[in-house]
Amino acid sequence: MYDIIFKKREGKELSTEEINYFVKGYTKEEIPDYQVSALLMAIFFNKMNRRETVDLTKAMMNSGDVLDLSAIKGVVVDKHSTGGVGDKTTLILAPLIASCGVPMAKMAGRGLGHTGGTIDKLESFEGFHTQMTEEEFIQRVNEIGVAISGQTGDLAPADKKIYALRDVTATVENPSLIASSGMSKKLASGAQGILLDVKTGSGAFMKNLKDAVELGKIMIDIGTDMGKDIIAIITDMEQPLGRAVGNAIEVQEAIEVLQGDGPEDLRELCMVLGVELLLLSGLHLSAQEAREMLLQKIHSGEAFNKLVELVKAQGGSEEQVLHPEKLPRGKYTLEYISNKTQYIAAIEAEKVGLSALILGAGRENKESVIDLGVGIYLNKKVGEKVEKNQTIATLYASDEETGKIALEKLKSCYEYSDIPVEKKPLIYGIYDKNGRRTI
Amino acid sequence: MYDIIFKKREGKELSTEEINYFVKGYTKEEIPDYQVSALLMAIFFNKMNRRETVDLTKAMMNSGDVLDLSAIKGVVVDKHSTGGVGDKTTLILAPLIASCGVPMAKMAGRGLGHTGGTIDKLESFEGFHTQMTEEEFIQRVNEIGVAISGQTGDLAPADKKIYALRDVTATVENPSLIASSGMSKKLASGAQGILLDVKTGSGAFMKNLKDAVELGKIMIDIGTDMGKDIIAIITDMEQPLGRAVGNAIEVQEAIEVLQGDGPEDLRELCMVLGVELLLLSGLHLSAQEAREMLLQKIHSGEAFNKLVELVKAQGGSEEQVLHPEKLPRGKYTLEYISNKTQYIAAIEAEKVGLSALILGAGRENKESVIDLGVGIYLNKKVGEKVEKNQTIATLYASDEETGKIALEKLKSCYEYSDIPVEKKPLIYGIYDKNGRRTI
Repeated sequence: MYDIIFKKREGKELSTEEINYFVKGYTKEEIPDYQVSALLMAIFFNKMNRRETVDLTKAMMNSGDVLDLSAIKGVVVDKHSTGGVGDKTTLILAPLIASCGVPMAKMAGRGLGHTGGTIDKLESFEGFHTQMTEEEFIQRVNEIGVAISGQTGDLAPADKKIYALRDVTATVENPSLIASSGMSKKLASGAQGILLDVKTGSGAFMKNLKDAVELGKIMIDIGTDMGKDIIAIITDMEQPLGRAVGNAIEVQEAIEVLQGDGPEDLRELCMVLGVELLLLSGLHLSAQEAREMLLQKIHSGEAFNKLVELVKAQGGSEEQVLHPEKLPRGKYTLEYISNKTQYIAAIEAEKVGLSALILGAGRENKESVIDLGVGIYLNKKVGEKVEKNQTIATLYASDEETGKIALEKLKSCYEYSDIPVEKKPLIYGIYDKNGRRTI
Repeated sequence: MYDIIFKKREGKELSTEEINYFVKGYTKEEIPDYQVSALLMAIFFNKMNRRETVDLTKAMMNSGDVLDLSAIKGVVVDKHSTGGVGDKTTLILAPLIASCGVPMAKMAGRGLGHTGGTIDKLESFEGFHTQMTEEEFIQRVNEIGVAISGQTGDLAPADKKIYALRDVTATVENPSLIASSGMSKKLASGAQGILLDVKTGSGAFMKNLKDAVELGKIMIDIGTDMGKDIIAIITDMEQPLGRAVGNAIEVQEAIEVLQGDGPEDLRELCMVLGVELLLLSGLHLSAQEAREMLLQKIHSGEAFNKLVELVKAQGGSEEQVLHPEKLPRGKYTLEYISNKTQYIAAIEAEKVGLSALILGAGRENKESVIDLGVGIYLNKKVGEKVEKNQTIATLYASDEETGKIALEKLKSCYEYSDIPVEKKPLIYGIYDKNGRRTI
């Protein structure tokens, strides 16, 4: 291990064997934390090339179970988001794509951050659970076209260990390490077609476009070298996605979109992501045909019905899907009122997330319990005009005092303008293995 | 601690408080190894400036006991070598300088490497021991002018911990870390005047002159900022120093020098180092007067007598000092014979050290037991001519098979030339707080 650290420290390329050696050794606890953290810092400074990054991903993927989804009929596609505030696209795309006849076998996680993850959000439906065996998972996808499973403890355990170490040793922000971490889990989940939603902006991991594109390209390289069909879409996370930030409140917004309503940015992003998922699925459609199919499934009610099926199949309350106003909701409502007529110039996504975290919508540490009913509704988004005494945002809290603290935090997220403001683009580009593609 | 790692990773300067925080926290085991190793790797890449390096040294020095030598009459001086093969100058300088009336209160260590350290070498004298209390140490210096003590467990414990971690995480080779490690121990040993012997060449830590000068300058900066009088001499370690490499065999060679004999390079280096030590001691001599005093103490027998006194005072066999042929000596003698007439062009010091280690002269790990009688005698050194069938080197082994393996290793250390070869300089320069000084 000393020699491996030394080699990377000197800027040399690590061999496949060396990468396998340290990933295996660390997973088996034969190599101590302090040597791995020194190596990670050396990687931070001296980087990894494409071959090394692919080998690291492969080694982490192979450190645990790799799902075999070959028993599922059709081409299984999957979506991975690098994470942002208000991102509930999985809740929408899973039933929407399944309603188009493309199998969605989705391994999802819980969140450690501003709000819960996909699974936490879905647990807003009373009784909803994601515990199932691999066989049940496959069977359910074959039956109703969609299943959402919690990650098993055996999916890329090396990544879990290495990520935890990076988190406390300031070695998170390296493109190869970020890409291999995300991809090792995704690849272990077994889909053939992978769509990456790489977020950029103040609320994203990648604060600027250049870094986001670099990350997307590395992830495409990894997927391509491992025989997958893979696309990366670079999307905006300067302000939160949609209007709802929380758990139950995001589920409600997802239902709106599945019913042909909901905020414009969220609807449009789901269309763009949905088209790419259909193109990856081997349905042999043009982009235009794919978009029309998605709209038709929404307008016919089939997409929403698929969500109902999914929730029922996984033990959740049908009543709450059909009547989302029955989902949990914090009992205190606080409003942020505009003191003059103005335009919203910016809403800092990360700080909105922190306000939601103050309310109890997320986890500060692994032991935290999420309050599913709390959250924030952004009545006005960037570019919109707010009149004097109109509501800019609404908070739902379980505790009044906490609500007030969160409201103060929320106020600091906003910038205003007296003149109209231009909105930022929602989509910055679509990339595949050949580079940037026309949208 | 995360913030400290992050700050250094981003190339920022750490504050005094931050440096104290991590050194204290690590010594108390409140900060885990894996965070410190990540920080050390970040320091390796982003370096530390003079202020940070001084603060690190101070923090490590203050992590344990700091000797108070104010009860010793006169200006206490000390010498620190960055380490090399065949370096027995302390064995010579301690009694030599003491015989000039300058107190030598020497804390010495055991070696983890090719041969033993000063204490191991001195233990070649039967009964010699270095256990003593601080009071006994000071009393002995006041009585006979010299004492050599083993390092107590409480001298710069932070350095001990950090060094052990650097050793297994490939974070040794950073000038600030090397300098602060050496200086923290040296400063805790309490001398007012410090002479650094910074070795350069294949057998040294610093393989090239530039790095050696850089290290010397940083150590001078540290010493100066901590109120010490400090000098660094850059000396050659391309080939071993003197002709003897081992433990008892090095003691014998040291005795030869104290009696006015011994190899020319070792004699000359002791003169140069000795002059600087006398200049640091406040005796108010010119360099010429200092050199004359050293020669006079050797020729009068006072220097050698001081060694006899030292050995006796610390329980060692007087008989073996007076008759060094009674010191331990491996029972097998192996000779490396020249097969033609030629000149010695190079003797790779580090490999000679490895040959000695094979013989058992050093420690491969903390548990190794040193064989004091084994060693190597270099009958010919660089620039010398060897006739066909003359001996190039002699090995003393305790076991014939091991001797043969060491002999094969030793053969690989040599380069030859058919024409006369120019010797490299022994001294590359003398530096003080104002930079390079004339010799």
